[in-house]
This record gives sequence, structure tokens and C-alpha cells, in this order.
Amino acid sequence: MKLVRYGPRGRERPGLIDAEGRLRDLSAHVDDIDGAALAPARLAALRRRAPASLPRVPGRPRLGVPVAGVGKIVAVGLNYREHAQSGHVLPAEPILFMKAPSALCGPRDPVRLPPGAVKGDWEVELALVIGRRARRVPASQALAHVAGYCVANDVSERAFQFERGPQWDKGKSCDTFCPLGPWLVTHDEIADPQALDMRLTLNGETMQAASTTDMLFPCADIVAFVSDFMTLLPGDVILTGTPPGSGFLRSPPRFLRHGDRLRLAIAGLGEQRSRIVADA
Amino acid sequence: MKLVRYGPRGRERPGLIDAEGRLRDLSAHVDDIDGAALAPARLAALRRRAPASLPRVPGRPRLGVPVAGVGKIVAVGLNYREHAQSGHVLPAEPILFMKAPSALCGPRDPVRLPPGAVKGDWEVELALVIGRRARRVPASQALAHVAGYCVANDVSERAFQFERGPQWDKGKSCDTFCPLGPWLVTHDEIADPQALDMRLTLNGETMQAASTTDMLFPCADIVAFVSDFMTLLPGDVILTGTPPGSGFLRSPPRFLRHGDRLRLAIAGLGEQRSRIVADA
Repeated sequence: MKLVRYGPRGRERPGLIDAEGRLRDLSAHVDDIDGAALAPARLAALRRRAPASLPRVPGRPRLGVPVAGVGKIVAVGLNYREHAQSGHVLPAEPILFMKAPSALCGPRDPVRLPPGAVKGDWEVELALVIGRRARRVPASQALAHVAGYCVANDVSERAFQFERGPQWDKGKSCDTFCPLGPWLVTHDEIADPQALDMRLTLNGETMQAASTTDMLFPCADIVAFVSDFMTLLPGDVILTGTPPGSGFLRSPPRFLRHGDRLRLAIAGLGEQRSRIVADA
Repeated sequence: MKLVRYGPRGRERPGLIDAEGRLRDLSAHVDDIDGAALAPARLAALRRRAPASLPRVPGRPRLGVPVAGVGKIVAVGLNYREHAQSGHVLPAEPILFMKAPSALCGPRDPVRLPPGAVKGDWEVELALVIGRRARRVPASQALAHVAGYCVANDVSERAFQFERGPQWDKGKSCDTFCPLGPWLVTHDEIADPQALDMRLTLNGETMQAASTTDMLFPCADIVAFVSDFMTLLPGDVILTGTPPGSGFLRSPPRFLRHGDRLRLAIAGLGEQRSRIVADA
């Protein structure tokens, strides 16, 4: 299933995208697409409903963050070979950092650069959404704890991230710095999360083009690894790192400007489109 | 008011501690002590209730995390002069990092050291709980966005924090690494958050004894500073840094062992007591 949350910010309703790409309403069957709704039994029950029996939603409403009540966003740094080698030694284990859930926004919402942000940057990433509590799970069982997958943009302000102290958080958690979606694709539709082409364009020009096959640490290893440090709860999100092509590693570097347009796509997960604006 | 959440984990009920130190139930008047309940008007309405009119709670139930639905925990590093000078230059601005909300636990719950944790450490800190959305607020108005104050322990595993990559998160967000409470003391009871004595003892021996007057960046500046980077939402928590005396900066270093007992107190905010156990 392709699950969505649609409607004005803060008042989103649950829905799904049917095989013909039409939006249908799920609010008779689930309160929201949140951690509780992502439990395997709840997802299985939703899956048994014939999409044609669900009411169609007219018009083209805004799409919100496809999962509600995200408890934490754990992100992996330097998880693709070429990106990882750019001025760094290959990490011996995943580098972890966090983004604030308040940074989440919908897949077509504007990305707002805060005042003073002159090194705004993009990172297309495969996001995992947890559906089952995961605490010290082995890699062999890790993907059974993933409810589904999304496109994510780990938007970063590189001066805030690297030039204002030892920790990256200032440049990672600004409002709208984590567009997620367009939809949450349940795991049954993704045969192999390590074989997904991904692409990011800036004003039509390809900046990142890669495959999740190039991850240094694959999804299962990441889930297992994170779950050794902290319990992953339903609705938590993991960002699995970005392939080469971010602006700060280009020669010369290239950063986001107001009016820029980003498109991010991952095979089977749809396309995210963001316009860059000033956060007035 | 001294607000608490009491009862078994996951089923806590709202309450308050009256002037005689007795626990009284608030569940007829508020669903939970969460971000919504911390809005100034809601707190004022609670304050108008005579504590003597509230039912007393028998026995000594467990105390939970005194605020529910914490969206993010933003922490400040090296915010006390002597601690900041220990091998570091004084930071020009607050160092920010995050702890996962899943690390929260009640003020008398055991602190569980995960397998392999050999450098578990303590940090008594003044925690601020946000009551009003704060986005780029000036320092002069910042404290009006704080609903109240708590004792917090920014429990850390120093090997996970410093020896496993450039970011601190692995050592900061393990389950139970953020005991909070015993209670949330509303701002009207704290005349000056920069004049609070604080103390931490390990097995009865004083490890940290300081005052919030020694902060490099006071609470108002911290709230304003964080709100420049990301919107603070009701229920968010800010940890304001720890004074000298953590284990890893002692000579010789000293780390937590199973069976250790910590007591943390801040003037007017009560006492937190934690036993260190293995996270089996």
C-alpha cells in the first residue's frame, strides 16, 4: 500500500493511493497513519480492504508527512562509498545523529531556509519507518520491524552543521529540513530495499543519481545497529544516508537559493518536490 | 505547582504534590500533563483549583516522566565554566545536541546500562519544559515560553559518545538515559532559574555541587538561541548543561557500576534517585 496523510497541516486525514494513482480516504478504517496503525496486524487488516471500496478524495489536496507522531528520527552519516570517501575515512560502523521531529514537513511543502542560512544543501535518502518495537534485534530479523519506506530529504545547512561547534544538530533540525514522502510504501511492495534507484535534481539538473545497493551498511544492519543503542518504537524514522552529489562536496560547492526547485525520487516510492523559500 | 505523572509505565495519571508533600490526583481536571496541558491558560486554570479539593492518592505509587508526549530533547554541552574548561576552549555559543525521547524515564526508575557500557556517567542538569511555541524569540521574552523546570540526569556512556564516531548520539540516547523529575515545578514557583543550588551524590559521596548561577549561557539565552534554529513546541525539553564533577573528567576517571545509587537534587525541584542496573 501507498499510505498518505492529506489535508491542511495539523489536520491531515489518512488515505491511500490506489493502483491507478488516485487518492482514497481511509478515515473510516484508521484514525491516523501513526505508530499504532503501522503494527503488522493493523497493516494486514488495511491491506484486506479493496481500495475500490474506499471513497475517492476529490481535488488535489496537500500531502502531509505520511506518518504521524514520529517519536525520533535517527540518521546515518556517510553511508555511501563515494560520499563517505570525500575527505573522510570510511566509517568502521554507522555514524548516527538525530533530526528533530519538528523538522518534518510534507513532500511538496516549501523548504524554508532560516535567516543566515547560506549553505543550505540537499540529501536524497531512503527512509525506513518502524512498525514494531525493535530492541537489540539481529540483522536477520531487523527488516521485520520496518513497516515501510519513504523518500526523504535530509536537508542540511552546512555552516550551521560544521562551523558552529562539534555537533551537527544546528544544521540538521531547522523547521522543514526533513520533507518525507510523498507516501509511505509498505514493506510488502519493496522486494529488496538494497536495489532501489534514487535521484535528485536541482532545477532540472541531476545532482544525485545512485542506487541503494551502494550503501556501506544496508538497511537491515542499520536497524539492528541502532536498536543496540536505543529502542526503536513504531513510528520512528531512520534515514539511511545519502549518495554522492550533495552541494557541499561538489567542486565548486553549490548551495540552495530561494526559488530553487528540488525533485527527489526513489524507485517505487514516488517523487518529492520542494521549492526553496526564505523562512520569513 | 509541582506536577507529576504517577502509576505504572505507560499508564501514568496526572497529579500534583500539595504543600504538605502529599500526592493528589488531577485526572478529573486534565487528561495528562502534556504539551497541551502546559499552555499558560491551562496551567492558570489548574492553579485556581484548591489542592485540598483534589482526591489524595493512597500509597506510594511509581512516579513517571512528569511530562508526556515530549517531542524533542535539546541538550546544551559544556555550559558551566569549569566543566567547559576541562580540555576544551570555552564555547563561543551553546553547543547543541539531542537525546531521543525514548531515553526518558521516571525519577526513581532504574538507569539501565546496556551491554558493553563500561563508561556510564552522570550529569545533573536543570531541565526546562516548554509551554508555549517558541520560534526565534528574543532572550527578553524567552522564559515566558517555559512552563516549568525539572531535575534531569543527562546520563551518558562516554565510550559510546566519544570513541565511536564524531557525533555524541550513541552515548546519549540509550533507554533510561534521561531520568526526569520527580516533578515538573511550574515557573511561578521559581523566582530565578539562575540561582538554584544543585547537587549529585554517588553512593552518598558528593560528585557535583554547584549553582545554576555558574551557567555560561543562562536559560533565557538558551531558549532564544535554540528557537533560532528550530521551533520549540509545548512539551519539548531543554537540558541546560551540567556543572563540573562528571565521572569522565575526574582524576582518575570514575564510571557507573551496577548497584550504584545516584541522588540528584536542585533547589525547589525535589530529589531524583536512581539505581544503576544492567540492561539485561
